[in-house]
Amino acid sequence: MGKKKVIQRINLEEIKDPSFLNELKYFELDALSHDIADYIIDATSRYGGHLSSNLGVVDATIALCRVFDFKKDKIIFDVGHQCYTYKVLTGRSLERLRQKDGVCGFQRMAESPYDHFEAGHSSTSIAVAAGMALARDLKKETHSVIAFVGDSSIANGLAFEALNDVSMQKHKVIIVLNDNDMSISYPVGGLSRLLRKYGTSSFYSKSKSFIKKVLCWNGFGRWLYKIGGSFKNWTKIHLLRTNIFDNLGYSLIGPIDGHDIKAMEKAFKKAQRIDKSVIVHIKTIKGKGYKYAEDDNFGNWHGVNPFNKETGEPLNKSTMTWSELYSDILLEAMREHEHIVTLVPGTGVGSYIEKIHNEFPKRTIDVGIAEEYAVTMSGGLAVSGLYPVVSIYSTFLQRAYDEISHDLARINLNATLLIDRAGLVGNDGSSHQGIYDEAFLMSIPNTVIAMASNRGQAKSLLNESLKGHGVFAIRYCKNACLDNYPEENLPFGKWKEEILGHKTAIVSVGPETEELKELLKDKDVTLVNAIYQKPLDEEWVKKLLNYDKVIIYDAYSVKGGFPQALASRLAEEGFKGKVIIKAIPDVFVKHASVREQKEEFKLLPEDIIALL
Amino acid sequence: MGKKKVIQRINLEEIKDPSFLNELKYFELDALSHDIADYIIDATSRYGGHLSSNLGVVDATIALCRVFDFKKDKIIFDVGHQCYTYKVLTGRSLERLRQKDGVCGFQRMAESPYDHFEAGHSSTSIAVAAGMALARDLKKETHSVIAFVGDSSIANGLAFEALNDVSMQKHKVIIVLNDNDMSISYPVGGLSRLLRKYGTSSFYSKSKSFIKKVLCWNGFGRWLYKIGGSFKNWTKIHLLRTNIFDNLGYSLIGPIDGHDIKAMEKAFKKAQRIDKSVIVHIKTIKGKGYKYAEDDNFGNWHGVNPFNKETGEPLNKSTMTWSELYSDILLEAMREHEHIVTLVPGTGVGSYIEKIHNEFPKRTIDVGIAEEYAVTMSGGLAVSGLYPVVSIYSTFLQRAYDEISHDLARINLNATLLIDRAGLVGNDGSSHQGIYDEAFLMSIPNTVIAMASNRGQAKSLLNESLKGHGVFAIRYCKNACLDNYPEENLPFGKWKEEILGHKTAIVSVGPETEELKELLKDKDVTLVNAIYQKPLDEEWVKKLLNYDKVIIYDAYSVKGGFPQALASRLAEEGFKGKVIIKAIPDVFVKHASVREQKEEFKLLPEDIIALL
Repeated sequence: MGKKKVIQRINLEEIKDPSFLNELKYFELDALSHDIADYIIDATSRYGGHLSSNLGVVDATIALCRVFDFKKDKIIFDVGHQCYTYKVLTGRSLERLRQKDGVCGFQRMAESPYDHFEAGHSSTSIAVAAGMALARDLKKETHSVIAFVGDSSIANGLAFEALNDVSMQKHKVIIVLNDNDMSISYPVGGLSRLLRKYGTSSFYSKSKSFIKKVLCWNGFGRWLYKIGGSFKNWTKIHLLRTNIFDNLGYSLIGPIDGHDIKAMEKAFKKAQRIDKSVIVHIKTIKGKGYKYAEDDNFGNWHGVNPFNKETGEPLNKSTMTWSELYSDILLEAMREHEHIVTLVPGTGVGSYIEKIHNEFPKRTIDVGIAEEYAVTMSGGLAVSGLYPVVSIYSTFLQRAYDEISHDLARINLNATLLIDRAGLVGNDGSSHQGIYDEAFLMSIPNTVIAMASNRGQAKSLLNESLKGHGVFAIRYCKNACLDNYPEENLPFGKWKEEILGHKTAIVSVGPETEELKELLKDKDVTLVNAIYQKPLDEEWVKKLLNYDKVIIYDAYSVKGGFPQALASRLAEEGFKGKVIIKAIPDVFVKHASVREQKEEFKLLPEDIIALL
Repeated sequence: MGKKKVIQRINLEEIKDPSFLNELKYFELDALSHDIADYIIDATSRYGGHLSSNLGVVDATIALCRVFDFKKDKIIFDVGHQCYTYKVLTGRSLERLRQKDGVCGFQRMAESPYDHFEAGHSSTSIAVAAGMALARDLKKETHSVIAFVGDSSIANGLAFEALNDVSMQKHKVIIVLNDNDMSISYPVGGLSRLLRKYGTSSFYSKSKSFIKKVLCWNGFGRWLYKIGGSFKNWTKIHLLRTNIFDNLGYSLIGPIDGHDIKAMEKAFKKAQRIDKSVIVHIKTIKGKGYKYAEDDNFGNWHGVNPFNKETGEPLNKSTMTWSELYSDILLEAMREHEHIVTLVPGTGVGSYIEKIHNEFPKRTIDVGIAEEYAVTMSGGLAVSGLYPVVSIYSTFLQRAYDEISHDLARINLNATLLIDRAGLVGNDGSSHQGIYDEAFLMSIPNTVIAMASNRGQAKSLLNESLKGHGVFAIRYCKNACLDNYPEENLPFGKWKEEILGHKTAIVSVGPETEELKELLKDKDVTLVNAIYQKPLDEEWVKKLLNYDKVIIYDAYSVKGGFPQALASRLAEEGFKGKVIIKAIPDVFVKHASVREQKEEFKLLPEDIIALL
């Protein structure tokens, strides 16, 4: 080891702000990069979180923090799941990452003045940057505004709307396109294919400033023109490498090796100088520095639960989750019914759609991060005599409110929404809670909402949906589903009497019902399993009028969903007793474990027992 | 006049299906085109509707109906507002256009087997076509699937998501890009600029099939490559005219003159033959054949109320509408407060934002048909110390549910949503009703919802919102607002006692409250003006407990909005009396006049009086 290369190790927990970076030499930065990667692997192995995407951008984040001054310059990490290095460099510990008392897994303004916005859902960064850049120019300020966005996020509609508009505005935005050749699962779409075509070169970086000087080529140009389309197409694809971005009018820099800090610095400095909106295209390796994550072609290392660092094995292999269960049931249904087509917007790994795709590749479509498209496309399938099943996370379904209403329900088409991660989701925090869909789906006519309380009911719900009741939303939560429940056949729209008692009735939604059933064994209380949240079971509404007290218990939704709908119906029907609603309050819910969140809102089964 | 050109006039009301078209000669088709244009002008002059867009596509629709057989081939008109010619050619009369007993202003499957889908909101057609094309191929059918989409609609995020995916799929879709250089107001974005660059030529139509044959150009290509970026950029822009669509991998045909039926037929036939997804780019003149509409650069002739055909003047110049009123108030506020920025997604004409744009061009942004972008961009503005006001129609706000929640409310940013066309909208029908936003906004924390009952209250609401209460949604309806109300200062979150009585209370939302006030003059009934729908006025909730009967009257929302929230609160508080909810039921509402729609649902003030 040469003496010059004595590396001063940085204690990552003692970093206050990124200013120290500029005192380091490149070989020291490389060492720092390794240390941060190890730190991230260590933190996620203990607390879970986003691994691959964070490892991929350690170097890029270091380069950004050396070139820009984020005390004044603004950066928005798209989605925000790749900001761990940024957290470390801006003085935040990953100890207790995503835990109630620790840092959030996404950017969070309350956490640091270095966080200038916050996300969780994808593809918002360019739109936010557009607003910030307009604000900067109206206020005659001069800082840079940077959107740091992945190749999958940029293929989403919202990102495109922003790209399309920003290209025409005079308000400069720097877009760093982090191209790692992977969406959560795998990249889709023509845009992705385009990006694949480019190797790493400085090809794009040629300035456009000389265009006028080559007008003398005009005659030659006309001659070329006559050669016709074949040459044009060939040159476009193989030689000139035009793409969407410069077509829209952006300056382009890159592709740059996203692990070459020096090269990126040069590119970012150039982007700083250019006087119009610019895209810096960097090529990164997702999962860099952790073998298992680097070798992962399916996105299994995108979001992880705690794992053994040495073996890569998960620490607590849980029993079957609801996601796995519904995936099994759906696969079975697809074997039975040829007309089912499954659509999934980029969350195939999380919802175990991969195995369905493997068996039925033609009837399983991952559309990438494009929730609206998935739902509207399902309208085209439904009207053509096929049966679409859209597998989607509750929180991402928010993106498709209009499409569910306008392109499915309004035309009274039949489709099933398999809504994964409904209810409190725990450590991902406020951007990912699945607690609003029940409420917003309630407002859409021709829509059914249902939730099984145990695994024996799940198949019946899916089968019922296939009979054609309009939009049929089946919600299920992130947790493991309890085993040992026999298959049940549930009549459409009916609630289930679990226990018959007097005076007090509990109307309960979801898996908590099974726990309550145990706890209520020796009590004179009626327990109603409200398997359908919409429509209401009007027979039960009538029966409930005879009780002194009705407790509406829904730990999977804000009050505005099923609870309010039922309480309101009871009021209309002249209920004279006491109504108690136990549901999630009208708030956004911070990161903590699901258990801690339920405790906070007094939504555990024992809290319900305490009301008796 | 030459004898050959004796034109056989077609009686438009007697057309059964488009088969007759193939018996006509081109000069006869031209005559037919004129007759249809006149027929459309006549119908819209009497009943209102979409004029310019329909006049622009008469010829293209004729050409399509000659080339394709829409008994088996499928066509989706994007938005569907330009389908009048298609209705005529498929045997539907425009007599009673958009009236209760007449044809809908959009495609409507219940109306004709020739309507294969239906819309109203923009940019869904390619996604629907993708679903139909997949279904066709899975079912081994062979018909064509056509998305007919305008240049503004195609710049929307959902359209892009579809374009991006379709380009990679093997399921062929024909996209007819109707490029008329006009969105509802004016075209925006880089994509639009790109389209402007192309004149009418057959340039694109060169096949790509010879690419491999020119690989001999390779060495020459390498030499060219060395010349560098300048030449590349120049050739790209001026010579090769690459664009987004062929970058994504589409075959391109056009631009074709969209009023040359013969040329379009040729293009459509070619599109039929190509074995991959293809875009046929046609250039049309919006408003063609009606002077006033052709000369319109602002979109005033996009959607029209009944007018005098000769003069172009509106038949009933109504008194001031709520849209005009709020535009005036907003303009005043922008003069007073420099930090207000107004965003509008393509509906600047309908909501009278043009004049604001004229006075404050830098602080008034029309983002085109990009509701999501408008809302998320407003997040970037809000976090930078400016105050965003988003002017948006209720029905289009459905597109931005997630963005309101995720990018504004969740971060507790301050912004005003001026929600135009809230409530029943009448003749536009099911796709345009503004009756759901109250309900879906209810489910979003940190959100305020308010509606003035008279014009004197409007300014107070806007000013209150500027104080910063999070997302502040101000709803207003399409109708004229009654004059002669003095300015009122409304305290935040408070309802207003209009009349104090005993036993029965009516809690009323919106302008109907003023009518009720008149009707209740001599009655012993409490009338509460629920100016805020969220949060509830808890003081009033308590007071209402003393009444025997509470009627919740909201003609501007489905039951799931304010009415259910209040009824549910009453139930929780132990209300023992009778609760009656009068609101729009959980259905989609067909085209008819607003009055007819209110009559149907018994939502007129006299219907409320009848309940006493």
